[in-house]
Amino acid sequence: IGLLQTPRPGSCGVHCRELHAGGERPTPSPAAAPERRPFSRVTPEDLAFFSKIIPGRTITDPDILETSNVDWLKSVLLRPQTTEDVSQILGYCNSRNLAVSPQGGNTGLVGGSVPVYDEIILSTALMNIVLNFDSVSGQYRCVFESLSLFLEDRDYIMPLDLGAKGSCHIGGNVATNAGGLRLICYGSLQGTVLGLEVVLADGRVLDYLATLRKDNTGYDLKQLFIGSEGTLGVISAVTILCPRKPKAVNVAFLGWESFEQLLQTFQRCREDMRLLNTHLKLANPITDCPFYIVIETSGSNPTHDEEKLHQFLEEAMTSSQVIDGTVAMEEAKIKALWSLRERVTEALTHDGFTYKYDISLPVERIYQLFTDMREHLRDRAKSVVGYGHVGDGNLHLNITSPTKDPVLLASIEPFVYEWTVRFQGSISAEHGLGLKKRNYIYYSKASLAVALMGKIKTMLDPKGILPYKTLPDDLQ
Amino acid sequence: IGLLQTPRPGSCGVHCRELHAGGERPTPSPAAAPERRPFSRVTPEDLAFFSKIIPGRTITDPDILETSNVDWLKSVLLRPQTTEDVSQILGYCNSRNLAVSPQGGNTGLVGGSVPVYDEIILSTALMNIVLNFDSVSGQYRCVFESLSLFLEDRDYIMPLDLGAKGSCHIGGNVATNAGGLRLICYGSLQGTVLGLEVVLADGRVLDYLATLRKDNTGYDLKQLFIGSEGTLGVISAVTILCPRKPKAVNVAFLGWESFEQLLQTFQRCREDMRLLNTHLKLANPITDCPFYIVIETSGSNPTHDEEKLHQFLEEAMTSSQVIDGTVAMEEAKIKALWSLRERVTEALTHDGFTYKYDISLPVERIYQLFTDMREHLRDRAKSVVGYGHVGDGNLHLNITSPTKDPVLLASIEPFVYEWTVRFQGSISAEHGLGLKKRNYIYYSKASLAVALMGKIKTMLDPKGILPYKTLPDDLQ
Repeated sequence: IGLLQTPRPGSCGVHCRELHAGGERPTPSPAAAPERRPFSRVTPEDLAFFSKIIPGRTITDPDILETSNVDWLKSVLLRPQTTEDVSQILGYCNSRNLAVSPQGGNTGLVGGSVPVYDEIILSTALMNIVLNFDSVSGQYRCVFESLSLFLEDRDYIMPLDLGAKGSCHIGGNVATNAGGLRLICYGSLQGTVLGLEVVLADGRVLDYLATLRKDNTGYDLKQLFIGSEGTLGVISAVTILCPRKPKAVNVAFLGWESFEQLLQTFQRCREDMRLLNTHLKLANPITDCPFYIVIETSGSNPTHDEEKLHQFLEEAMTSSQVIDGTVAMEEAKIKALWSLRERVTEALTHDGFTYKYDISLPVERIYQLFTDMREHLRDRAKSVVGYGHVGDGNLHLNITSPTKDPVLLASIEPFVYEWTVRFQGSISAEHGLGLKKRNYIYYSKASLAVALMGKIKTMLDPKGILPYKTLPDDLQ
Repeated sequence: IGLLQTPRPGSCGVHCRELHAGGERPTPSPAAAPERRPFSRVTPEDLAFFSKIIPGRTITDPDILETSNVDWLKSVLLRPQTTEDVSQILGYCNSRNLAVSPQGGNTGLVGGSVPVYDEIILSTALMNIVLNFDSVSGQYRCVFESLSLFLEDRDYIMPLDLGAKGSCHIGGNVATNAGGLRLICYGSLQGTVLGLEVVLADGRVLDYLATLRKDNTGYDLKQLFIGSEGTLGVISAVTILCPRKPKAVNVAFLGWESFEQLLQTFQRCREDMRLLNTHLKLANPITDCPFYIVIETSGSNPTHDEEKLHQFLEEAMTSSQVIDGTVAMEEAKIKALWSLRERVTEALTHDGFTYKYDISLPVERIYQLFTDMREHLRDRAKSVVGYGHVGDGNLHLNITSPTKDPVLLASIEPFVYEWTVRFQGSISAEHGLGLKKRNYIYYSKASLAVALMGKIKTMLDPKGILPYKTLPDDLQ
């Protein structure tokens, strides 16, 4: 589910700077890295130990490190293959007081999987082994990887779909509680993940790998790790409930004059097509409409689905003033329509430096944040682009400038967060807090809640060897 | 989703006793109450304090207490109306070291909501106020109560349905992670509960009441309270995602010769009717089949649903040897078919004392537990009855005897738990552990997991004033 407001040309960043010339420098952003904590530094003896546990998979080559690291740092990259490897590594690091940065596919957007200083990078890249597939109950046990192809062969699909599906890891998806495109069909990972195996910070292995739909024996500990961004342990195996591959898929691409009209259709869509697995995405314009939406339906009976879709479209066209629309049933056209959505992100990278916000709001507010932000920034930003997921009230707000621009940033933040709080939104819908947004947590969570998170962190990682991410500096 | 094995007449409990005559008395059951812990006892001053906070709602009348208490105990029943009331009461009890037993509709089956000794009963009976209803996103914020009618008026339904719907409370449902009849349609409460407000044991109010589908800001603390059975705090408000009321409902009632055939149909059902909101229930026999199943479908287009159901039934009749079947589309007949399911429980109460087990298993094993148990008990039980939820692998195994029979119990336990563990099942699918099953937790959870639960308990209830339930005695 998504929407996009057509970007309007803004003026350049130089103008912004002139506007603010003579003003004081903004104070350091709460997104800036915290100070390095007094962890041990990796010694040759440490490297020798790692090389013994995982021979050939202890990497210190700067060229390889760069790909995992973004910035080159004097660190080491460890690539365990088994839970036992991870357990030995973490046990050792914990006893040596060495900081660790777990890393999956490194596709995150908030600096969650990248070391801040010299943390050891614990990569799950080699842990992509499918352990078990149970077709009676439709469950799936796996150790990381993008599973789509394996599942498609068996006539199943993953309960989530992501733009980064080519490179993200299922362990990372779970660790970040990835939302993605199928959330309103199949629900969040909090509902579809049936079990986890987690290596705790001290190397102990928490076996929570049930394959059962129902299990009410004690507190649901696995939920603590879903969305904890690797700060409470390393997820080494996942049991996940996978839906059957739909027999019929349709995609509709529609355009409107106003957001209210779009929302009307969305409500109708919920009512009339509740049974169809529905995705809405608003992508780059193909015709001249201010608002676009992509609706994907999937079902078991192509004739029924086509009939329902046509009935829905007929009503939408007449009653909520859809300007234009097209429907795809063949795979090539479906892909073409979806690629419009992918091009939004691509287009943004060509537009300059992008400030990215991933805001969750009551659905009827998502467009208002966009317009208020544009009104607020006026000419200071190059472009203000809004797209996202109408179905779950998730706006991806992107603001570009020719280069990094601290003055522009100071205009965006904390404005965007304060606006979000005013309307009971969340400052991170699906991207997490990672490094960049850790200090903004208080905008979305009560102090008592954050304090309890700190206690849970202390309970599961008493030495804090999984540092700097998710929790605010005052709790690190 | 459910199945039922026709009960066969077994022999009476007296015979069992004879069979074991002369044998040693079985050791006290792990289900037996733990020793009373050294909490304070309620004084007249305490009663005066409570009467001041909630005048007229501090009950010491034994007749009223009996209904909340099962056994009459020298306790007190408090009926707060607001979160602030609950907060003041718990804050006071915590400081006075008075033990508290939270209680919703008191419909649980594992002694979770009943005081063990003289714990103060904190009833949520008066907290049934609807705070907010948001029709755009289909969310619902409420403070306890059975909400079905309120929702039906607004064309929504609850994402769960329960036999106890007439008297259970939504707070209790969430506290026990109630499963019920709609689980395979709408998923578990872990996915549908969007937010919670919880009064912690020390009276602090944890506000986690988001109404957002997506919120990745820190650890998902609300999940700790879903299924914690009132041992970590008292749930005072819930935000829950409610599906639209379906426009078409069909119920099919089918019978088979063998469980394998039933399972074949269930798989076909998942494949062909994935889009229909499907419930399967096997109720008391109406014709002469060993196995029965009830399938409920719901959808938006009656013609489509009827067509899909008929196509499914045609295939099921020919390929998986359904012996007999009937389909209901009118409300009266639908109710009549469902009432067969309700009569199972009713019939059991007439059969004598019932030992109840709520086992989660890989779907293909649920009938095997039933047959193995009957083989194991032979004539010692009066009846062995199995029904439950085929869709989520949940068997309700009920074993009756004319009266309470410790010898029979010793034959059932730990056999039933050991059998369950052997096949990777859970010893409590949806009923929770409460008082009766707290010490069996190790059958379903690793020691490390249970130890972590103990730490969470200590973190959230350091004085342990919400005692005796869920966690085993060695952690109390």
